[in-house]
Amino acid sequence: MTSDPSAQPPVPPKGPLNGITVIDLTRVLAGPYCTMVLSDLGARVIKVERPKVGDDARHIGPFVKGKSAYFMSLNRGKESIALDLKDDQDRDIFLKMLENADVLVENYRPGTMEKLGLGWDTLKARFPKLIYAAASGFGHSGPYSKRPAYDMVVQGMGGIMSLTGHEGSPPTRVGTSVGDITAGLFTAIGISSALYHRAMTGEAQKIDVAMLDCQVALLENAIARYFASGEIPGPLGARHPSITPFQAYHAKDGYLIIAAGNDGLFKRLTEEIARPELAADARFTSNQARCDHVHELTTQLETALAAKSVEDWLAQFEAVGIPCGPINNVEQVLSDPHVLSRNMVVEADDPETGTLKMAGNPIKLSSFDDPPTRGPVPDLDAHRAHILNSFKQEQ
Amino acid sequence: MTSDPSAQPPVPPKGPLNGITVIDLTRVLAGPYCTMVLSDLGARVIKVERPKVGDDARHIGPFVKGKSAYFMSLNRGKESIALDLKDDQDRDIFLKMLENADVLVENYRPGTMEKLGLGWDTLKARFPKLIYAAASGFGHSGPYSKRPAYDMVVQGMGGIMSLTGHEGSPPTRVGTSVGDITAGLFTAIGISSALYHRAMTGEAQKIDVAMLDCQVALLENAIARYFASGEIPGPLGARHPSITPFQAYHAKDGYLIIAAGNDGLFKRLTEEIARPELAADARFTSNQARCDHVHELTTQLETALAAKSVEDWLAQFEAVGIPCGPINNVEQVLSDPHVLSRNMVVEADDPETGTLKMAGNPIKLSSFDDPPTRGPVPDLDAHRAHILNSFKQEQ
Repeated sequence: MTSDPSAQPPVPPKGPLNGITVIDLTRVLAGPYCTMVLSDLGARVIKVERPKVGDDARHIGPFVKGKSAYFMSLNRGKESIALDLKDDQDRDIFLKMLENADVLVENYRPGTMEKLGLGWDTLKARFPKLIYAAASGFGHSGPYSKRPAYDMVVQGMGGIMSLTGHEGSPPTRVGTSVGDITAGLFTAIGISSALYHRAMTGEAQKIDVAMLDCQVALLENAIARYFASGEIPGPLGARHPSITPFQAYHAKDGYLIIAAGNDGLFKRLTEEIARPELAADARFTSNQARCDHVHELTTQLETALAAKSVEDWLAQFEAVGIPCGPINNVEQVLSDPHVLSRNMVVEADDPETGTLKMAGNPIKLSSFDDPPTRGPVPDLDAHRAHILNSFKQEQ
Repeated sequence: MTSDPSAQPPVPPKGPLNGITVIDLTRVLAGPYCTMVLSDLGARVIKVERPKVGDDARHIGPFVKGKSAYFMSLNRGKESIALDLKDDQDRDIFLKMLENADVLVENYRPGTMEKLGLGWDTLKARFPKLIYAAASGFGHSGPYSKRPAYDMVVQGMGGIMSLTGHEGSPPTRVGTSVGDITAGLFTAIGISSALYHRAMTGEAQKIDVAMLDCQVALLENAIARYFASGEIPGPLGARHPSITPFQAYHAKDGYLIIAAGNDGLFKRLTEEIARPELAADARFTSNQARCDHVHELTTQLETALAAKSVEDWLAQFEAVGIPCGPINNVEQVLSDPHVLSRNMVVEADDPETGTLKMAGNPIKLSSFDDPPTRGPVPDLDAHRAHILNSFKQEQ
C-alpha cells in the first residue's frame, strides 16, 4: 500500500455528476458508501487518507492477498492521497484542493474538524461554493453529539433491533450495516439536492446527517403503530406487521415468501393451494381480519403448503401472478440471472489481487450507460502526483 | 376521504428543492417514501390517486378514527387529486400537469404506464424537460421485470434474510421495510442528481430503480466475504461479521451493545471491566484474532459484564469513550431526549384525527430551517380545485 507515482487516475463513469469533484475525508462505511454512490453517478472522488495507515477499512477483513476486500468493494474508482492535516505543508495542499472542489465529505466525530481549524464556519468563509457534508453517529447538535457511534450502537439505540427477530429470542442485528448505509444514502440525497440548489442559486451549505436519525426515519410503520395505539411494537419474526399474508411460510422442503396482502391475491392463493373456502372464512375476509387471526391463517396455509416443494409452489404462484419468492443466500443472489442481467455484480481490477466482484449501482439512468466495470481500487496515496498536478494553480 | 374543494394546499417547507413540482403516481411505500423525502426537501408533491379508492396505503392499518396512520405518516404535506388515467378528460388534466412539472414518479409494475400510453418513450417526446422516475420490484429490464414484488419478496430474494437472525432459527425479516425504503432512497438520489444534471445541461432522463437491486447494494460486507472466501455467509445473530467486539452482550439485567472494534478501544474495555489480562491474551490481541475466537471472547466478556446492570455499564463506558448503547424499543427511541432535540419526531395536523406524530427528516441543512411540523395529510382529491387552477393555461 505504498505510493506509485505513475499510477493512472481512474476515470469516473459518465453520469449526472460528471464535473463534480468530491474531497473525501471519510473512513470505513457510512461516508465511503455515500461517496461510492456519488462516484457511480460520475463524480470524481478523491480520498484524503491518513499517512501510513489510511482508511481504517483497509485493515478490516476479509482479505485477499493481504488487501481488504471490504475496503476494495467500497472504494473502487476513487483516487487516493495521503495527507496529515496537522502538518502545515499537507494542510496547504488540502486547502488548495478545496479551492477547486465542489463537495467535502467527512464522517469524523463532531468537533474534530473544528479542532483541525477546518470547521464549516471557517471553510464557508473561505470557500463559499463548497458544499460540506458531515455524516456522524449522533449529528452536530444535541446531547449525544460528541459520543462515538458505530453501526451496532445505532441499530440498538434506534429501535430496529427491537423489531427484528423472534419473540423471546436473543437480540438480533439486521444482517447488514443499515445503520451506516442508510446514513450514507441520506447524505448522498443531501449532497445531490444541495448541488441542485447551488446550480440554481449559487449558494452552498452544510449537510448534517446523523446515523441515529436515519434509524428513526427507517422505523416507518412501527412509529405509526406506536402513536396510533400506544402499544410498543415487538419483534415480528418473518412477517409484516399489518399486511397478511405477507411472510415466510414453511413448505415441504423449506421456506418461501408469499406476499398476497390484498383480497384479490389472497383469494387467488387459496385457490392455488386448493383451499378456496379460506377466502370465505369470516376470520380471513379482509386484511384486518387476517391480521387479527394471523396465527390461525399461518397454520392453515402451512398445512396446505406442506404438500409441495418450495420450487414447485414458486413456479405455480409465479404463473398466476401471486407475489412470492425464495429465501436466497448470498451465493444464490449473486448468481441469479436477473440480478446479473441488471448489472448488479460489477468488477474492478487490482494489480495484486486481480479482478474483484462487487455490488453495482441500483440507479439505472437512461442518459448514461451502466458500465460492468469500475475503476481500480486505490492503493494508499496512489494518485498523489496526479492530484497535486490537477490542483496546481498560479498563486 | 371526499374532496373538499376549499381545502388549502400545503406549503412545502423551505428547502433546496423549492420550485420543483413532482407528479406522484406512487402507492404504498417505496414511491411515497421517496416523494416524502423530496417533499421534506422543499418540492411540491402532487399525489395522483385512483378515484374512490386512492393510494392502497389508505386502507392499511393502523387506523386512527378510521384513517390510516400508516398512510398519514408517509404522505403528510402532499397534495391530492383523484384522476382515472383511462378516462379521456382526466388524462388531459394529467397531461396538462406534466407540461408544468419537473418530475414524474411511479411505482407500477413495468409495462403499466406503456399500456396507459404514458410510457417514458411517449412522455419524453412530448415533455423533454420531464424527469421520469420508476421504482419497481425488479426493474424495467431483465427476466423477472414483469413479476409483482413486495418488500417481503425482495428481502427474501435479495439475501438480507439469509444474514439476519440466529443460526438454526426460522427465517427472520428485517423489522422494517428496508426493501421498499432503500428503493425509495436510491430513487430520491437518482431524481436529485438528475435535477442537477438537467440544471447544468437542460437534459431530462428516466431513472429505473429496482427494489431487488437495492437489496444487493445493501449486502456490502457479505458480498466481499463471499467473493473473497467462497464461503456463503450465514445469519450472524447480534454481531458484526468481521469486527470484534461489536455485538450485543448480556449484562446483569439485559443486553447492551458494545462496539469496541479496534485495539485501543478493546484495551480500554478490558480495563473498565477489570479484566486487563484479556488485552494481552494471544487469542485477542488483534481484530482478526478476536474474530477467530469470538465465542471464547464473548464468554469472557459476559462473565465480567454480569457484575453490573446495563445502565451502570453504559454510564461507565460512555464516560471513557467506549462506543456503546442500549437496545431501545420504539417508545424509548421516540422519547429519547437526543432524538427529540434533533427534531426527529415531527407533527402534522388532520381535521379529524387531530395532530399526529411521525418521523422527521434526517437531512439537516444549514441554509434551511428544519420545521417541527409538516403540512396536513391530504384527504383523497382534497386539492382538486387548487391543482386544476394552478395548472390552468391558455391553449
